Amino acid sequence: MTEQTAQLPAVLAHAEAGIDASLGRLFELIRIPSVSTDPAYAEDCRRCAEWLAADLTGMGFEASVRKTAGHPMVVAHDHSGEGPHVLFYGHYDVQPVDPLNLWNSDPFEPLLVPQPNGDTHIVARGASDDKGALFTFLEACRAWKDVTGSLPIRVSVLLEGEEESGSPSLPGFLDTAAEELKADVMLVCDTDMWDAETPAITTMLRGIVKEEFWVRCADRDLHSGIYGNAARNPLQVMSEIIASLRRPDGSVALDGFYDGVKELPAELAERWKSQPFDDKKFLGDIGLSIPAGEKGRSVLEQVWSRPSFEVSGISGGYAGEGFKAVIPAEANAKISFRLVEGQDPDKIAAAFRAHVSAMIPADCSVEFRNHGTSSATVMPVDSPLLTKMLRALEDEWGRSAIAGTGGSIPIATVFKDRLGMDSLFVGFARFDNRIHSPNEKYDLSSFRKGIRSWVRVLAAFAQ
Amino acid sequence: MTEQTAQLPAVLAHAEAGIDASLGRLFELIRIPSVSTDPAYAEDCRRCAEWLAADLTGMGFEASVRKTAGHPMVVAHDHSGEGPHVLFYGHYDVQPVDPLNLWNSDPFEPLLVPQPNGDTHIVARGASDDKGALFTFLEACRAWKDVTGSLPIRVSVLLEGEEESGSPSLPGFLDTAAEELKADVMLVCDTDMWDAETPAITTMLRGIVKEEFWVRCADRDLHSGIYGNAARNPLQVMSEIIASLRRPDGSVALDGFYDGVKELPAELAERWKSQPFDDKKFLGDIGLSIPAGEKGRSVLEQVWSRPSFEVSGISGGYAGEGFKAVIPAEANAKISFRLVEGQDPDKIAAAFRAHVSAMIPADCSVEFRNHGTSSATVMPVDSPLLTKMLRALEDEWGRSAIAGTGGSIPIATVFKDRLGMDSLFVGFARFDNRIHSPNEKYDLSSFRKGIRSWVRVLAAFAQ
Repeated sequence: MTEQTAQLPAVLAHAEAGIDASLGRLFELIRIPSVSTDPAYAEDCRRCAEWLAADLTGMGFEASVRKTAGHPMVVAHDHSGEGPHVLFYGHYDVQPVDPLNLWNSDPFEPLLVPQPNGDTHIVARGASDDKGALFTFLEACRAWKDVTGSLPIRVSVLLEGEEESGSPSLPGFLDTAAEELKADVMLVCDTDMWDAETPAITTMLRGIVKEEFWVRCADRDLHSGIYGNAARNPLQVMSEIIASLRRPDGSVALDGFYDGVKELPAELAERWKSQPFDDKKFLGDIGLSIPAGEKGRSVLEQVWSRPSFEVSGISGGYAGEGFKAVIPAEANAKISFRLVEGQDPDKIAAAFRAHVSAMIPADCSVEFRNHGTSSATVMPVDSPLLTKMLRALEDEWGRSAIAGTGGSIPIATVFKDRLGMDSLFVGFARFDNRIHSPNEKYDLSSFRKGIRSWVRVLAAFAQ
Repeated sequence: MTEQTAQLPAVLAHAEAGIDASLGRLFELIRIPSVSTDPAYAEDCRRCAEWLAADLTGMGFEASVRKTAGHPMVVAHDHSGEGPHVLFYGHYDVQPVDPLNLWNSDPFEPLLVPQPNGDTHIVARGASDDKGALFTFLEACRAWKDVTGSLPIRVSVLLEGEEESGSPSLPGFLDTAAEELKADVMLVCDTDMWDAETPAITTMLRGIVKEEFWVRCADRDLHSGIYGNAARNPLQVMSEIIASLRRPDGSVALDGFYDGVKELPAELAERWKSQPFDDKKFLGDIGLSIPAGEKGRSVLEQVWSRPSFEVSGISGGYAGEGFKAVIPAEANAKISFRLVEGQDPDKIAAAFRAHVSAMIPADCSVEFRNHGTSSATVMPVDSPLLTKMLRALEDEWGRSAIAGTGGSIPIATVFKDRLGMDSLFVGFARFDNRIHSPNEKYDLSSFRKGIRSWVRVLAAFAQ
């Protein structure tokens, strides 16, 4: 144990004592409405990046805001420590808040809401994804600096503002900043716990293909009485296309969709089985009870190790009050495929477009727009740093788990491709955090023990 | 020929000479944005009714605005004439104008746009449906009054403000005003010409069932990565429902939908065949070429004598800029069935709700809202007044036709049920008037010869 890491208990105690100040800083960050998908919030995204750079500078990092074609990056370094060099990745942008009427409070005015179970919820957009999560790492660094004046290892930080819109600027930025950002491993804090008591390192992530398409029929909106039956209805065509992509057995009905998809390795399947998971509770928490995916697959398989097709939005025709007897000229849909190891995003996107195009009547047309793709990633479960991290988590929580995630974290692929770095995904968020939904929350315990966990991980890596 | 009807040529000449003044009055009416489906325009609907009552009073009618639970009615009488008593029905409300960005000019600032064919378009919302149309009758009455001081027959006028929202107040109003409004026949000017040279009396109207429904699954919007596959997607369920209602052969796939639907009577089928109609042009005018209805049926059959199913709007999930990886909590659709003689609207609505309910997964729910129903109506083609009207039209145009319409004019049923009156539907609108769509227009020739036609019809009825 180094002289510095011997101070672990003191650093933990300091972090513990400063939790209210940590929350105060997090709330300041959350109050900046950094919605990256809506151009109206571009200025807020810039403010958010500057706030973070100033905060990192304040704790002794060499930090700066870097312009991109889109929202800026925040880059910071503290090489006061020795041993391995880690790059911590997080994102300061958040999802849109609509439907706003379903929020119980202002999405950008964080609230502390005590819970019957004794925990407290931090309620706000970004409380969990990803402001609350990335802040657990920053507060851990702050605690080490406050107590020991330096960090146990060499740390770089990269915070982007376009994760929720597909990270369009990231690949180019990594190409230009490769030398500066290359480290031994990337740390990402954007994933879920296994359960309320068990932190998890996520070693399996689904990829994604995000597509939007428009079906166009008549050259104008039509009166459904005058033209009803004879004029093709793009909403009918759209519905038939969406319906055709899922089979009654829950599988995805796209040619070659399951080509190359492997069964879960026996060892991982065993580990998943050994870790407690309640299908009924997982669905019950969101008001459902019947798994909608492939029959014969467990819920964990459906959301982690099996690919999916989902519609995220359909619009067309009259959506206002009352009724308008119209056959619209066009219909729009936003869809996505979640991919697993063995699936090629480009092949899936091409198969999808071919499938749709084949269903467009000869006198109608279709237009496609891609909103991002990434392949699935699987981490090696036996690396030394992963082992050290598991031990550090067990020291804090008394247990740990290895998980997958149905979510897509495209940057894992981007960093592997661009910088040849593996990533360690650890997160302290709960399944029920309602990220991307109204009333997103982060448990205060996730925040507090998350900070403590990172304090321990930094020490463990120095061993 | 009566002394008064002998003045027909003078009245026609007077109407002809006053066409610019007639247009000026019509433009004033059009500038009042009387959208009945949107509560925001309630005050404009009231203003519109008052404008019409004042105009009718100005030409010597005993006119008044009558309150209803919704938008007011305009009722006017002029019994200065003798012979038959007609009730002219029209509606002063108009459809919403969205999508506004597809209009080439302000929908409520009428423009005269000269056409290559030598005609001129009156472009505005309501130019055709129904302000321009109802005004042809009012201007004909004005001409008779100006020249002869009275009308050739007894005329009552009823103008409502809720036709585009299903006429909710009309039945109740007719019950209370039955004595006052009962006449020998109802005249309605809300239908199309057979072609640019041939006015048509419409004897066949489709009925309608308008339904809106919501499919609800999870109790909140979900992250499509975390829940994708396992959580039921209401947009998927909605799409499967819509898709299930049309067969590949274009027929409507609802149990018992075609029960009681008869083939077109041979005599009418003959007359339709003898009247020129170009399927290719009908679809070509709206940028289409392939009839989407039942295979083996002509386009006229598909839109006039065969029932249809149409989706007028679907909404659910994220419709904003960019992409949001969400599984929405609910999806909404507005649909309608167009009905023909022999179909019971209530049975169709019940069959639809049963069909949908049967497709809702056990852990999801559905809510229905009806936006109006009416059964199809068929007029007797051999009544004396119909014969007189055909002759009057032939005097003006040199020809006439008997048509159907795919549109639903529920008031025909309402008046038949409530007052036992048959209706004569004659209109001077063209197929391509884009009613209910952006850039709605009415041909100046429709307006001018429409006025002249009514001048002749009023005389013919007096014979």
